[in-house]
Formats: sequence, C-alpha cells, structure tokens
Amino acid sequence: MTGHIPSINNQRLLKRLDDMASIGALANGGVSRLALSDEDKAARQLLIQWMEELELNVQIDAIGNIMGMRPGKKKLPPVMIGSHLDSVGSGGRFDGPLGVLAGLETVQTLNENNIRTLRPLIIANFTNEEGVRFTPDMMGSLVYSDGYPLARALKAAAMDGRGITVGQELKRTGFSGDITPQPPPNGIHAYIELHIEQGPVLDAEKTTIAAVEGVQGISWREYNLEGAANHAGTTPMNMRRDAGYAAASICHFVRTLTRKIGGKQVATVGVMEFSPNLINVVAHSARLTVDLRNPDGEHLKKAETELDRFVRKLAEQERIDIHTRTLARFEPVVFNPSIVDLIESSARGLGLSVRRMYSGAGHDAQMMARICPTAMIFVPSKNGVSHSIHEFTEDHDIQAGANVLLRTALTLLEEK
Amino acid sequence: MTGHIPSINNQRLLKRLDDMASIGALANGGVSRLALSDEDKAARQLLIQWMEELELNVQIDAIGNIMGMRPGKKKLPPVMIGSHLDSVGSGGRFDGPLGVLAGLETVQTLNENNIRTLRPLIIANFTNEEGVRFTPDMMGSLVYSDGYPLARALKAAAMDGRGITVGQELKRTGFSGDITPQPPPNGIHAYIELHIEQGPVLDAEKTTIAAVEGVQGISWREYNLEGAANHAGTTPMNMRRDAGYAAASICHFVRTLTRKIGGKQVATVGVMEFSPNLINVVAHSARLTVDLRNPDGEHLKKAETELDRFVRKLAEQERIDIHTRTLARFEPVVFNPSIVDLIESSARGLGLSVRRMYSGAGHDAQMMARICPTAMIFVPSKNGVSHSIHEFTEDHDIQAGANVLLRTALTLLEEK
Repeated sequence: MTGHIPSINNQRLLKRLDDMASIGALANGGVSRLALSDEDKAARQLLIQWMEELELNVQIDAIGNIMGMRPGKKKLPPVMIGSHLDSVGSGGRFDGPLGVLAGLETVQTLNENNIRTLRPLIIANFTNEEGVRFTPDMMGSLVYSDGYPLARALKAAAMDGRGITVGQELKRTGFSGDITPQPPPNGIHAYIELHIEQGPVLDAEKTTIAAVEGVQGISWREYNLEGAANHAGTTPMNMRRDAGYAAASICHFVRTLTRKIGGKQVATVGVMEFSPNLINVVAHSARLTVDLRNPDGEHLKKAETELDRFVRKLAEQERIDIHTRTLARFEPVVFNPSIVDLIESSARGLGLSVRRMYSGAGHDAQMMARICPTAMIFVPSKNGVSHSIHEFTEDHDIQAGANVLLRTALTLLEEK
Repeated sequence: MTGHIPSINNQRLLKRLDDMASIGALANGGVSRLALSDEDKAARQLLIQWMEELELNVQIDAIGNIMGMRPGKKKLPPVMIGSHLDSVGSGGRFDGPLGVLAGLETVQTLNENNIRTLRPLIIANFTNEEGVRFTPDMMGSLVYSDGYPLARALKAAAMDGRGITVGQELKRTGFSGDITPQPPPNGIHAYIELHIEQGPVLDAEKTTIAAVEGVQGISWREYNLEGAANHAGTTPMNMRRDAGYAAASICHFVRTLTRKIGGKQVATVGVMEFSPNLINVVAHSARLTVDLRNPDGEHLKKAETELDRFVRKLAEQERIDIHTRTLARFEPVVFNPSIVDLIESSARGLGLSVRRMYSGAGHDAQMMARICPTAMIFVPSKNGVSHSIHEFTEDHDIQAGANVLLRTALTLLEEK
C-alpha cells in the first residue's frame, strides 16, 4: 500500500450498528437474536441488502454462511473479514455485528476512494457462533473449516427441546444455500476479525486496541461427589464424609493452582451445588464445575494434571467418591504472528495505544485459523461485560477498531 | 435403694414401641407423626390409655403436655421421666417414643414388683419437640420451663402456610388442657430422658450407653456474598471479585477452624449456592450457612470470633460485600453432674459399656435443665442415622437403656 490511507466513516458504521441493533431489540436495551430465529433472519436480510448496495457478489452456503465478495485486480486467494450476527438470548449490540459491519465499512471506504485492491475481499457472516440455540457453537465457521460434518450440523436440534433442527430452520428462513461450505479452491490469503474484548483488560488499562495472538486452550470438567449425609451436631469431624467440604476444597484449590501454574492461567468454579443443602445436615453429595484456560497447551495440561492429583488425594482423605466428566477440551489456537505484527503496527500508525493479548472467549477466527493465516483485533468492553444488555463500547473505540481493520486489510489485500 | 433391683420387661417395651410405630406408619418403614396431626392425636390417646391402665394420674396442660403421675410415699418434689411422641415428616420409631414408653415400662416394673417409692414419679410427653410443623421446636418443654410465653406458642401457625395454629390444633385434637404449663409448686427433684444418640459415636465404638453431660452450644449463621459476575475466560485472576471462591473459602476455613479450636468443636457448611451458577461465569453472588457447635461456651465464642475475623479479611482481599445474619444462637447446657455420675454408675452396675458424651442435637431435657437437675441417657443409633426411616436401634440396646433408666430413676426416687 502506498500513498494516502483513507479512514472509515464512523457515523455510517454507528448507523449500521444502530439499524442492526433494532432487530431483536429488547425493551431494556440489548438484543435477542438467536441463531436462525425470525430476528436472525431479518438481520441476515438487512446484511444482504447492504452487501448488494455495496455491489458485493453475495453467496450463501449450505450451513447458511453469507459471503459477500469484492473482486480484486487478480484472482488471487482473497482476504476475508468476518464475524457473526447472531446473539445470546439477552446480549449486546456489538458482540458479532461489529466485525461484520466494520467489514462492510471497509468495503464502502474502498469503494468511495476508488481503491481497487490486488486481492479480492470477502465479508463473511458465520451461522450460529453463539451456540445458545444449537450446539456446537461457532458452527458455521467450524463446518466451513472442515472441523465438523455438514450433515451432522444440519441435524442439530434446538436446545428448547422441541426438536426443530438447523437444517429445518435454514430452509424456513431461506438461508439454506446450495454452495458447499468450504474455502475457495486456491485458499484464503488471510482472515481477520474485529471484536469487542468481552473481558476487562483493555478498559481497565485504558488501552484502545489489542492485537490478539491466539485463543486460550480450554478445559471444562464436572465433578460429582458422593459422601454421606450426617447430623451436623452429632457427627465428630473425623467421622464425616462431607461432599460439600470436598467440593469447596476443590474450588479453593483451583485458585492456588492459578498461582502455582502462573502466567496466563485462569480457573473458575462457576457451578456449585450441595445436596440436601440444609443448614444442619452434612452434604451427602455435591456437584461443581471447573473451567481452566491457558494460551499455553503445556501449561494447561499441567494444570489439569495437578487438579487430578489433588482430587484423587482429596477423595481418599475425605473417603468420598468423586466422578469426573470432561465437558469440553480445546487446545489453544495460535494466530499468525505476521498478521498480529501487522495489526499492532497498523494501530501504532494511527497513534493508538495497543497491547498483545490472548482471547479468553471462543471466536469464528479460531476455526478459520485451522485453514488460513488468521488474527483478531479487540476493542474495549466497558467493565469487561458481555453477553449482557450492559455490554458497551465507546464510539471512539469503534472508530479506532474499524480503522485498524481497514489498514490491516489494505496491507493484506495488496500482498503479492 | 436397697435389696434386689428389678429389671424391665423388654418384650413388653418392644411391643409398646411396635404399637406406637403403627400409628402414622409409612409404607417403606418409619413413621410420620407431625405434632398435633391426626396421627399425633391417636398416639396421645394410646399413651393416655396405657397410663390409665397403669393407674397413673393423667393431667393435660394448656400446651398439650401429657403428665402421668405415680404417687410417692411422701408429697416430695417428683422425679420426671419424659420425651416426645411427635416425629419429623419421615422419621423413625425410636426418636421420642423410646423415652416416653421406657418411662411407662419403669412404672409397670415398679407396679408389678410392688415397689412404693419415696418420691412421686411423673411420665411426661411434651408437645411438638421436633418443630417441623410448628416453630419453635421443643415447644412443650420450653413453655413448661417458662422459656416461651404460652400465648405466643398457641398462636404459632403451621409451616404449611395454611394458617392453622397450635391453639386451634390443640382444641381440635382434644388436647387443650386447663392446667397451666409449669412445674409443681414445690419443684421437680430430677428430670431424666432416655433417647437414641442420633449420632454415630456409640455405634462406631460399640459402646452401649452414654451418660450425657450436656447439650452443645449452637451458632447458626448465614452469609450472603456479593461480588461481580465476569467472563471465566477473559477476566484475569487479579481482577475478579469472585463470590463463589469466597464462599468456598469460608467452607474450607471452618474445617481448619475445628482443628484450631480442637476438642469437641464441630463445624458444618450445609447450604451453598452460587449465582448465576453457570460454568463459564464468575459467580456474582453466593449464599452459605455455617453451623458451629461446642459444649464449651467459651470455645464456641472463640470459634465465632475467629470465623468473623477470617470473613472480614476475606471480604477485603476479594473485594466483595459479605452480609452476616445470625439464624440461631444457644449457649451450651450443662447437665447435673450428680445425675450424670448416677447414670454412669447405673450402667456399670449392669455390666454395660458406658461413656460420657455431649448431645449434638436438641432435646426436651435441655429445656428442663433450666428448672431442675437434669441428665440424659443415650443408646446407639445404627450408623448415626436419625430423622430417617432408616433410624434403627438394636433390641438389646433398648433393653440396656431402659434398665439404666429404671436404676437411675429408682435411686433418684428414694433420695430424701
């Protein structure tokens, strides 16, 4: 890229975010736009209208992913900018749409500056990123990157238990395309995604941009503990088999574990239940979950091993049975270092504060990283809140993120 | 007491326990005989029939306590043997009835051996010991010992929320007596109560008899913790305000506390709840209860103070709000050492294994200790189970307990 670098029109981008947020708008702010619901259908229709106004060549694949292509000077592998329009049941306006609509703003900025790029540019909306109505989450990008069979995804039934499937809802909403979900034959040059952080770090540090280096590995476990119910007054401490105490000990231990592993290790016990849950009865059973995340696969493995060892010893000491079940396990994803560098330098070129960061949450980008060079751009989430009607990002941070996206895309689009 | 000491007729006692257990019998074993229910009414009627067959002078007071008196040679303050016929919703056959029916067996043994005692003997059935249908528990003995106003007890409404009161149920069942619930003008010489342990110690140690030295002091607290909900993946450990971790830390600490205080200190966290209780969300709030018991009032106070200090420090470290509420607080009750000695020597005289013990559960005896010299006799509970259809005590332990009761009563009845 040589010469003058244009800037995005933030009023236009904010207007599109507003228009999109009006679809599935909740009375108390926020949005509800579950995957393949009527609201998601309306959002998709609006996106296609905008894409066509920008003269993108729109294609819909068999899992409902929407791709709008702006041709390049040459038929080289394209650059892709993507994210998702679906939301959780009571979510915010930025989680997902920001990445898609900032992609449209990139296209419109190129259009009005009469910039023809070397490579084609594709703006992508992936189906069912949130995974709230249908599992697995990141479904569209997962199928697209050959990580999950299309046929199985189409059969996924809605979590409300009424049995309606992804395939049926794609047909009903008119988004069951006839193109196979897969990258072009000559591949994708780079995938970039702008997203809100969904964590508190940028907001707390007053940093505007994160160049995201990867996505943490994740390990989710459920523990079911079986001890013995006993009278809280009459049972000496050494005769107890207290499932509640043992469950609390695991919760207490995982905090110690984060200090022992150090670095970016995080650990959370979010679910904790005692039974019979009565003040004067020693709990005979308890259930808890442990969520471990680390961008370093070896360290995550070490955390799991240490936890296993603690749990085994605890079961023996407290004479209780502990059943462990793995609910989810993903290896960390490392993004493309060159693109991460490029994002960082694009931000610096704009005079923005920038840091590197690992994503704690899952994104379509982690699926795309399976098949092409990938990285992400984060902007601050106020107080780290997301998946909430209180999700908020300042206008100037939206603008900064979209300009970093534009600059990064422009460089990638001109790479030979 | 001089000369030959008679023994109780255990077949007769077991038959009465059987007959009583048939009232409110549950299909799967156990009994349901909630205070002042139709089942409790039938149990009371059977008791009165038995009392009259044994020529006891039966009186019913205004809180429904039933007293059957066997006259002494002199009008000295009587010895009282008592307990309760009401049960929890799904309870066993021994918790309560054993003490009352072993009292009848004492009377019948005296009668058939033509033993006239110096002092009168009263067999008492106290109203609503369990406190399941109406609160407070130990209501009959509490009112009798001037620990709770009669008028207030009569107004206590059933926990099922339909508003029926103790006073109404006493009238309906025919047990609203016209005698003021209070001890005789010249007082009570001694109160003794035979009960199952409701704890595992005697069963585990294969000891037949406990001479109960008192009832533990009890401190019940509820903690409500308020932190902040955060994403489990994106929130660094040092930026969390994790109410769940803090709640688990309190649970973990109370175990440490029992070791620090030592002796007979027990501590239980029976209730634990996280909110929103989701695997990938740091809990913004949590609720737990702590049940502390100790027969030593000073040590119990020390445990409370240490716990308070820990909770204050924790709230500061984790930057969460912790609201503490006292749900119950009773000072320990110390029984009369002479009667405890007498129980122990009575057991030894019968060649039975015996130990001293503090009661972890509440009993009518702890109310009676307010107004007269009191002690209790415990027999083993299989596996420490009570308040359950699985409550069980061996026939030979019933026999042993009833004979210790008889011997102890005989000595007390002859005291000048």
